[in-house]
Amino acid sequence: MNDRSNETQAARDSNPVLVEVTRGEMVESCHRGAFAVADVEGRIVLSAGDFERDVYPRSAIKPLQAVALVESGAADAFDVDQKELAVACASHQGEPQHVEVVRAWLSRIGYSNADLECGAHLPYGEESAHALIRANQPAETVHNNCSGKHTGFLAVARQLGVAPKGYIKFEHPVQQTILGILEMMSGLDLRGAPRGIDGCGIPQYAMPLGKLALAMARFADPVDQPERRQAACAKVRAAMAAEPMMVAGTGRFCTQVISATGGRVLVKTGAEGVFCGALPELGLGIALKIDDGATRASQVATGAILRRLGVLDDDVAQGLSHLLTPELHNRAGTLVGEVRAAEPAFS
Amino acid sequence: MNDRSNETQAARDSNPVLVEVTRGEMVESCHRGAFAVADVEGRIVLSAGDFERDVYPRSAIKPLQAVALVESGAADAFDVDQKELAVACASHQGEPQHVEVVRAWLSRIGYSNADLECGAHLPYGEESAHALIRANQPAETVHNNCSGKHTGFLAVARQLGVAPKGYIKFEHPVQQTILGILEMMSGLDLRGAPRGIDGCGIPQYAMPLGKLALAMARFADPVDQPERRQAACAKVRAAMAAEPMMVAGTGRFCTQVISATGGRVLVKTGAEGVFCGALPELGLGIALKIDDGATRASQVATGAILRRLGVLDDDVAQGLSHLLTPELHNRAGTLVGEVRAAEPAFS
Repeated sequence: MNDRSNETQAARDSNPVLVEVTRGEMVESCHRGAFAVADVEGRIVLSAGDFERDVYPRSAIKPLQAVALVESGAADAFDVDQKELAVACASHQGEPQHVEVVRAWLSRIGYSNADLECGAHLPYGEESAHALIRANQPAETVHNNCSGKHTGFLAVARQLGVAPKGYIKFEHPVQQTILGILEMMSGLDLRGAPRGIDGCGIPQYAMPLGKLALAMARFADPVDQPERRQAACAKVRAAMAAEPMMVAGTGRFCTQVISATGGRVLVKTGAEGVFCGALPELGLGIALKIDDGATRASQVATGAILRRLGVLDDDVAQGLSHLLTPELHNRAGTLVGEVRAAEPAFS
Repeated sequence: MNDRSNETQAARDSNPVLVEVTRGEMVESCHRGAFAVADVEGRIVLSAGDFERDVYPRSAIKPLQAVALVESGAADAFDVDQKELAVACASHQGEPQHVEVVRAWLSRIGYSNADLECGAHLPYGEESAHALIRANQPAETVHNNCSGKHTGFLAVARQLGVAPKGYIKFEHPVQQTILGILEMMSGLDLRGAPRGIDGCGIPQYAMPLGKLALAMARFADPVDQPERRQAACAKVRAAMAAEPMMVAGTGRFCTQVISATGGRVLVKTGAEGVFCGALPELGLGIALKIDDGATRASQVATGAILRRLGVLDDDVAQGLSHLLTPELHNRAGTLVGEVRAAEPAFS
């Protein structure tokens, strides 16, 4: 185990409360965490909590992983369009629109459902999940929320001229290519970082939140990166902005924020309470981690950061109010509380 | 808003980390919280964190609410058997075994699905939920995890000779009866306490964790309570011990702990990371709240408290290891981490 991780969470100072969950006359639950907003020189322009603490970025860095798809030449070689590039950045809901794009893309590059090593799970989208259950059909790997990303990995493997099998392993050229990009964009030596396995099987490298924010700032504005990477980042950003529905799905936070801001704000959720964001016009990157891993909190906290940065104007914020301060209703439909940002943490 | 609740969570000292979630070489997420173990005189014999902080007990006090069912005479008058009494204490999975018991009980006392005011949701049990979806049948109120408790409320209303409609309201005689029991067992004046509405529509009263533990100690050993209540508590305890499957369902934490200990340990989960427990042989009550509301943490922390109290012998603990330190597997079935108690908090 790496030195950086020897210290247990229990021994650490606590991060501030970022999000409160109310019920009636009381705050019932609260979520602590940390975040950093960095510019392309790594300056932290806004933060709360310990942003030097290591986190696994999880699916929040799918846009950075997708940079490899373009930079390797695979996107051009296989005529990857914007929907495909956006679904490579996605934690998608497994709706027909997502599954059809992934299936067609897989088939075009000569692979199938069986080549995806991400495992299968029922679609996150309730309607899509119920449709499968009703039809008595099993969940397939294409329904996995990461199937677009994995299809991208297969395309990179083909482009690199290596056998695709085992493309999720640390030592496979696909993962090594991505590791190189992550190291250069974060400025970290990740080969010695604490390592884990992601929900979909690929390696995860721990990185301090502030450096993750820097990597996202460079994704937003890769001014100090090689030209090839600048072009790749621009292509990935354009795909996310043009096809927000591919990045998540109907009703989802990422899709709605990207869509409502016309792609000026690119956000991506990750498991265990992680969120990343890129603000191309401002050259800023955002990285956030809720200590306890709750998505209800990471979304509301990300919304509060965006409000604080002034990138959601009042009209947009009004339209997103159901995401920024979600109401809680009980089973009979009665309003019982809300999830809200703990204001002091964002001021 | 009550004075006690004016202070926001954000301004409070943090509770200790009770549970850690590992992934590979690092602790990825952590859960803070507080707990108290009290004896029948209200002495706190074991604790962590701020046990004077108010919590909503949520479904963790269903056993105390079920005391009203017996004490009112309704259980005797309507021949309520142990399965019915246990399902009145339950957050059940909506399996056929639960739904059948609730339907039959409702019908015997002259009510139906339509009289339950808890709202409907798909069964928590995946198999049961999928069966309904496959059959194209809607979720009914009997599938609600609280349907047993609500049937008990209807029985109490009938016994009290009052109209059942609105039995979930604060001012209804059923809820006033329960409020009286909660006040006497916790020693609190709850009429001025911060109040909220539960997931199933009934009132929730905030109480300090230490007092909730006292109420559970009195449930375990009601030595200072009126005789009628002593008998009622004994009946409810016996039902939970005899019918653990009714209290939750297949594979569930509460069911497995009650079952594995032969009913010597009675535990009940609540939403938003609450857990209560009663140890009749030791005359102890347990109350726990995970600050962020996570059930994965409340279960593991409750297991650690039970271990610390010495009420799970090694054989039992071995058999429950999948609940005490659950392994985390990814979608492809690979072991990626575990959920574990943060030992210092329980020593």
